[in-house]
Amino acid sequence: MKPVKVGICGLGTVGSGTFNVLKRNAEEIARRAGRGIEVAQIAQRRPNPQCDTGSTPITAEVLAVADNPEIDVVVELIGGYTLARELVLRAIANGKHVVTANKALIAVHGNEIFAKAREQGVIVAFEASVAGGIPVIKALREGLAANRINWVAGIINGTGNFILSEMREKGRTFPDVLAEAQALGYAEADPTFDVEGIDAAHKLTILASIAFGIPLQFDKAYTEGITRLTTADVGYAEALGYRIKHLGVARSTDQGIELRVHPTLIPADRLIANVNGVMNAVMVNGDAVGSTLFYGAGAGQEPTASAVVADLVDVVRAMTSDPENRVPHLAFQPDALSDHPVLSIEACESAYYLRIQAKDHPGVLAQVASILSARGINIESIMQKEAEEHDGLVPMILLTHRVTERHMVEAITALEALDDVVGDVVRIRVEHLN
Amino acid sequence: MKPVKVGICGLGTVGSGTFNVLKRNAEEIARRAGRGIEVAQIAQRRPNPQCDTGSTPITAEVLAVADNPEIDVVVELIGGYTLARELVLRAIANGKHVVTANKALIAVHGNEIFAKAREQGVIVAFEASVAGGIPVIKALREGLAANRINWVAGIINGTGNFILSEMREKGRTFPDVLAEAQALGYAEADPTFDVEGIDAAHKLTILASIAFGIPLQFDKAYTEGITRLTTADVGYAEALGYRIKHLGVARSTDQGIELRVHPTLIPADRLIANVNGVMNAVMVNGDAVGSTLFYGAGAGQEPTASAVVADLVDVVRAMTSDPENRVPHLAFQPDALSDHPVLSIEACESAYYLRIQAKDHPGVLAQVASILSARGINIESIMQKEAEEHDGLVPMILLTHRVTERHMVEAITALEALDDVVGDVVRIRVEHLN
Repeated sequence: MKPVKVGICGLGTVGSGTFNVLKRNAEEIARRAGRGIEVAQIAQRRPNPQCDTGSTPITAEVLAVADNPEIDVVVELIGGYTLARELVLRAIANGKHVVTANKALIAVHGNEIFAKAREQGVIVAFEASVAGGIPVIKALREGLAANRINWVAGIINGTGNFILSEMREKGRTFPDVLAEAQALGYAEADPTFDVEGIDAAHKLTILASIAFGIPLQFDKAYTEGITRLTTADVGYAEALGYRIKHLGVARSTDQGIELRVHPTLIPADRLIANVNGVMNAVMVNGDAVGSTLFYGAGAGQEPTASAVVADLVDVVRAMTSDPENRVPHLAFQPDALSDHPVLSIEACESAYYLRIQAKDHPGVLAQVASILSARGINIESIMQKEAEEHDGLVPMILLTHRVTERHMVEAITALEALDDVVGDVVRIRVEHLN
Repeated sequence: MKPVKVGICGLGTVGSGTFNVLKRNAEEIARRAGRGIEVAQIAQRRPNPQCDTGSTPITAEVLAVADNPEIDVVVELIGGYTLARELVLRAIANGKHVVTANKALIAVHGNEIFAKAREQGVIVAFEASVAGGIPVIKALREGLAANRINWVAGIINGTGNFILSEMREKGRTFPDVLAEAQALGYAEADPTFDVEGIDAAHKLTILASIAFGIPLQFDKAYTEGITRLTTADVGYAEALGYRIKHLGVARSTDQGIELRVHPTLIPADRLIANVNGVMNAVMVNGDAVGSTLFYGAGAGQEPTASAVVADLVDVVRAMTSDPENRVPHLAFQPDALSDHPVLSIEACESAYYLRIQAKDHPGVLAQVASILSARGINIESIMQKEAEEHDGLVPMILLTHRVTERHMVEAITALEALDDVVGDVVRIRVEHLN
């Protein structure tokens, strides 16, 4: 059979990785796919010295690839929302299949893109957009298709996980590790997307759609960053038998879907609590399968290329099939998406870690306990440290049972109003991930 | 679209789980697959009180399902080699697709079954045959299709892992834990398949074929059980920073494919070393993606049903497609399978843990070191314990660098011939799984 002709748009880290993997493993890939995958055109604004593109035709005009009648599949690796959206929509309009690694594009413009793709009977594949080389979209969309998914929880930002791992293992502060991550190239010069949870929220939005059969709703995702985490809390969590991870959590409840990214205490003996450095892992809990975990490199040149190329092999296999019988973009048939609402963070439920700086008076604990119990919040455990020398304040650490955020916010307001409580109450959510 | 009609053969644990999941999640599954999946016939020899089959037609004749013209897909869940093989071949001959959870059948008769399926243009799906609910066959065959796979290593027998976990956590002996596992129903009355590694070798045979594009060669797999593992070795391994797991390892080398199941020391900080109880996990290392891990329940009623039903959804999607463009049964096109040989265990390479019972004389270590170095075996570390009171023998524990089994066997023969060495040298392979 004739090789499938692919146009790679963007020859940065992932683009050159994709080109190199397709070239290096060409024989292996053809043995699997049954036909070759040939890069017939590359769009790049400037040459990439890491990538010997040989005699492959090059253009500086990215949209030319979408218009090239020879190209069967457009691989969008330029990033961003604007030109990438234009490129993908133009490729679809021209009847071409699309593979992309662009989580922001899918999370924000996916509903529009998939509707157009469906009209044209083409495939838009995006495995590389979540958790790099880990085939978790395929696992959720196909491998666990028998299940009603209860929840998904993932470490889906490598930069954040590297920072938290260093803080815990070496007792370093957030700004200190961030500076190193930037020097190592793990973190961008502007680290906002990573450390504020926006990147993770893009990925979680995609996972939640596929898990629960709801439209993509990035604007409803709650994000809380890791910038205010202190080494004190990392240490107290450790003493209580927990690790703090920047977790994306999507949970299906009778009221709606929870969709939230925030620092989270996880019991230290959970496998996911031991995923360190830049590695990613996603847990999926289904009603039949129970808890599963998928682990691997969540970013990087060749891990991401691994997912892009696997998508290409999938497209090669599916492009000759009846569009009505393909795996739906968002796992569920588009006319069977659910309007189950995404919940506001106030309506979400979790257990909590609280750190209260209290004056060293008898009776403070009774006041705290009374405020919590008045709001139906049960205390699971309490740890009171010795008074710290310089300020005479006693850090009081509590773990609560599960409660809605709304009640916890009310309780914290009341706690902060106590005369014997100084400063803000630190509150970090806890997930047991059984 | 009309529902797809399925015949379930065997209504034991997995059969009733499959029936129940299809019924309970019928709406969710149809929202994904785009059409319903209807159980149109069940073959069962005796009623299963766990399963209310309602008005579903029942037959006692399993082969009647393969001959039923109404049935599109035959689900083989009767187990064993003989009748299961006859059923599957008959279903294929009648142009029906097949889903099976039967690892022994696939590992031993898979080459024949897939050849017949190909002639008839039907699908034989077998995700449930390896690692229960973990979609690792899909991950290897599709999700990691871009990669040249370097190695696969898995905890793929829950019974064995439960026994090893209990031995380590509670210092219990093998026979003691085995008896409990049998009482709990984790282990069969005849536990040979589980504790001697035969069940794991069936699964590893399947994983290796899919990873490396070789025919199924169960007869070439090396198996070593966990029956002779002592709590002493479990404890020494722990002291050295390792855990002992019953691991299936398949590795591609220039000389051939290693295919082996045996107790294995793994560094305690590896994620897979922390997979405990009856849970399973499979690591896959590919040249582009690096190391990945897939974790979940490897057996049990509904986890296995989760994989069977996911296969059914896959079949529903693929049954209308061109047979030439489907995912090949063994991941690689049948005319592109490799004749790279499976290596004998003597030609396999690993690092080793050795425990030598030596008389408490000076100079023993020098003799040991000299025997190893004469065969090119480098010592990574040595731990000598105090002489044990009752026999005056000193346990000497060594970790070596990687060496072929052949050289290690020669060295052990020479060590056991030393006057100062008493009894057999204990030898356990070590894998670092980086």
